[in-house]
This record gives sequence, C-alpha cells and structure tokens, in this order.
Amino acid sequence: MKYTVITGASSGIGYETTLAFAARGKNLILAARRTEELETLKSKVADINGTLDIVIRSVDLSVSSNVHDFYDSLQNYDIETWINNAGFGNFASVGEQNLYKIESMIHLNIEALTVLSSRYVRDYADVEGTQIINISSGGGYKIIADAVTYCATKFYVSAFTEGLAQELSERGAAMQAKVLAPAATETEFAKRSLNLDSFEYIGAIPKFHTATQMAGFLLDLYDSEKVVGIVDGETYDFELRDPIFKYVARSRNSF
Amino acid sequence: MKYTVITGASSGIGYETTLAFAARGKNLILAARRTEELETLKSKVADINGTLDIVIRSVDLSVSSNVHDFYDSLQNYDIETWINNAGFGNFASVGEQNLYKIESMIHLNIEALTVLSSRYVRDYADVEGTQIINISSGGGYKIIADAVTYCATKFYVSAFTEGLAQELSERGAAMQAKVLAPAATETEFAKRSLNLDSFEYIGAIPKFHTATQMAGFLLDLYDSEKVVGIVDGETYDFELRDPIFKYVARSRNSF
Repeated sequence: MKYTVITGASSGIGYETTLAFAARGKNLILAARRTEELETLKSKVADINGTLDIVIRSVDLSVSSNVHDFYDSLQNYDIETWINNAGFGNFASVGEQNLYKIESMIHLNIEALTVLSSRYVRDYADVEGTQIINISSGGGYKIIADAVTYCATKFYVSAFTEGLAQELSERGAAMQAKVLAPAATETEFAKRSLNLDSFEYIGAIPKFHTATQMAGFLLDLYDSEKVVGIVDGETYDFELRDPIFKYVARSRNSF
Repeated sequence: MKYTVITGASSGIGYETTLAFAARGKNLILAARRTEELETLKSKVADINGTLDIVIRSVDLSVSSNVHDFYDSLQNYDIETWINNAGFGNFASVGEQNLYKIESMIHLNIEALTVLSSRYVRDYADVEGTQIINISSGGGYKIIADAVTYCATKFYVSAFTEGLAQELSERGAAMQAKVLAPAATETEFAKRSLNLDSFEYIGAIPKFHTATQMAGFLLDLYDSEKVVGIVDGETYDFELRDPIFKYVARSRNSF
C-alpha cells in the first residue's frame, strides 16, 4: 500500500491538498502540530473515501530534534509522494524582526525541509512513480519588502528543489522533484506572518487565490513533467515551467 | 574607537581580509573556532601595525546557542563594519549527503549569519559609515551540480543581503549592506567541502583566485556604493553590480 505524506496538513494549502489527494484515492500520512485539527481532518477524509488509510502524526517540525524522529517513524510505510508544505512567514524589517520566530522559521522552512527531502531521496530515488513536491513562494524568486528573511528561506527552497530536480534527472533517477511557488493565498499565512489573531484577505489583499485553488494547481504540477509550478505575481495566472535558476551541470563542475 | 568584525578569520578569505583591514589601520574583532590560529594571526597583525587593538573570540558559530552569546560579548565595542565570512560547503548529491554536516552548514551559513546581521542592523543601522558585508558565492546565483544544498544556503545569503540592502536604502538608513560572491578561491574550502585532509588547487581547478586576490575584491566592494561584488564564473573578472534579484518595494507590497 502506497502513501502520500503531507506536512503542515492541518490548515491552508496542506489541508486542501489532503482533500485533493483523498479524492484521487491516495492513502495519506498527515503531519502538523495540532492533533485536534488532524483528527477532524482525518474524519473528513473518511467521509470522502472510507477505504483510505489515513495516518496522523502530531509533530512540531520547527524543533530540529523532532525531524529525524518523524522520518524514522515512517520506516514501515511505502511512500509514493512526499509534500513538504509546512512553513510560515514573517513580516518585519530585518532590524525589527523577532529572532526567536526567525530561528524557528529557518528550522522549519529550511532545515526540516532539507532533512526530510534528503532522507526521502536517499530511500526512494530509484522507485518508479515517486515524487517530492516542496512548497516555496513567489517570494522564493523575487524578494518582497518587509519579508526579506522569509523570502530568503524560500529562495533556499526554490534553489534546493530545482537543483535536486536537475540532479535526479542527470542521474537518471526515477523520482521527480518539483517546486510550487504560490502568490498570496487565503490561508493562516498572513495571520501568522503578521502576528495577528485574525486576518481578512478580502478587502486587504487586491488579488489572491483560495487554498482550494492552490491545491488544484499543486495537482496540475503533480500531473505534469515540469519542475516549477509558479503563480505570476501580476496576473495571478498559474504556469508550469522548466527550472528558472541557472544550473551548472556535473560535467562542467571542476570539483 | 571603532572596530571591524570578521568571522571565520583564521584562514582563507577571512584571514586575508584581516590583513587587508589591518593595513588600512582598522581595529579588529576576529572570530573563529581555532584559538591557536587566531593568536598567530593576532601576532602577525601586531607586526603590520602595533597600534591596532585586536580582539579575538574563539567560537563555533555553527552551534546556535553560541551565536547570541558571541554578539552579546561585543556590546562594549563600537562596530563600524561587520563581515560575515564564516561558512563552509559540501560536495555530495542530496541523497548521499551527510546530514549532520548539512545541519551544521545550515546553522552556520544561514542561521548565524541571519542572527548576527539582524542584531548588527538593529543596533547600528542609523550610524554613519557602517557596513555589513556577507560572503555568498557564485553558487548563490547559480546552482552547481553536486553542491545543491550548499548553493541553496548561498542563494539564501544573496537574497537576504540584497533584500536587506534594499530595505536599508528604502528607509534612508545610514548603513550599507553588501554581498560578495567569489568563484573558486584557493582556501580550505575545497578540502572541507570534499572531506579531504588536503587539496591542491593548481592542476585540479582550471581557474581560481587566491584568497589575497579575493580580499582585494572585498576591499573594492567595501569602497564602492554598489551592493553586489561578484566574480564571473567564466572569465573570473570581478564586477561591482546593483542588486541582481528582483525586488518588490514596500509601496507595492499588499501586506
């Protein structure tokens, strides 16, 4: 039996992606901090398709020591797709930002994603039909004022994932690596980035997608042979593209 | 009395940058892991200019808890320039890389650099004549095969520092932020990246700069009004440039 892992599944794009993969008949391993939200989501998935196996894991992946334990706990599952969706943002200038929050953001957006990606690639790179999808951001291709450090974490995610995709392809590996780069999406992202109890997108943000729309784009990326799925920050059109950053292939690397 | 802070000062570009700033008559705060190398460097600087005050700090900045302590220990110094040079690389595929080393690399190249930059900006952004220079890499603008994760850390450094430079400029701050992007440079970098006891650049690498040359380029960047100092990966020419990544200014950011 094959499984799809989705981190950050309790809300937003992760939540809607869970419903979209359930509708495709995929067994799921869902990770997030909030147990109650995961239990509710599990029930909702059971209503959609009662034959699916749904595994939940309550884990805070911003704590480095939890990340290997989480991966280790999945050794007995056959994982077809891994989606690193867990992540958060922060809006503040570099000089004013809360460094406790920034360090957690680096641990989650970068370190956890890297460890989980690397271990999944190590174990599954040669298994036909496997995919890893990492969630970056439009801010992972252009820097957005007052979100400089968040954007830098997403530049990391874009470069890491595009580079991994090129590396897998150069080596003729079975696994595909892909990066999704949403623009503004109606989720808990703004609330958490701005340290607010609530945030209303309508009225405040001129253009945005719903999390359901973004989960649909993620499925388009999943179904395609392209490496990058990116929302144009002006038109809000979704585009499937080849890698965007320059890449120096192995044969041209002197080291 | 004003000071220049240089991390990773015990060897390579940091070592040569120390000598170059000493020749300019700058008092120095030198940080690295290796106490003996720092002591030797301090003596060498005293030979160049006996009137300089040279402070040394033995610290491993890849251990997160050391980073704030290091910054706190400098509260009584007036810091004119901060150079985040400490960092290391790794050559391996994503699936084969040593994750213990990779996590240390993320802590040093990304987390320590971010914490130290943010605290320096918080304390000194409005002080005339201050500069922060972060050392990225040509691999922070293009992805190099078999060094994907290292390059991703340097994409972070490039985006973070360019964004910081834009942010400081938008706010009319006195401080300048700059990013140096070397190509292959004859230092301990290759040895450490490849986990070798020694590495001979001549013969193995078709083109490279010496660390002394790179320290000269760093001084050119220091003296200029440009944000990016980058070595062209083909010609090995050094270029002073405006920011390379796209930036969405504050007035156009909806959040």
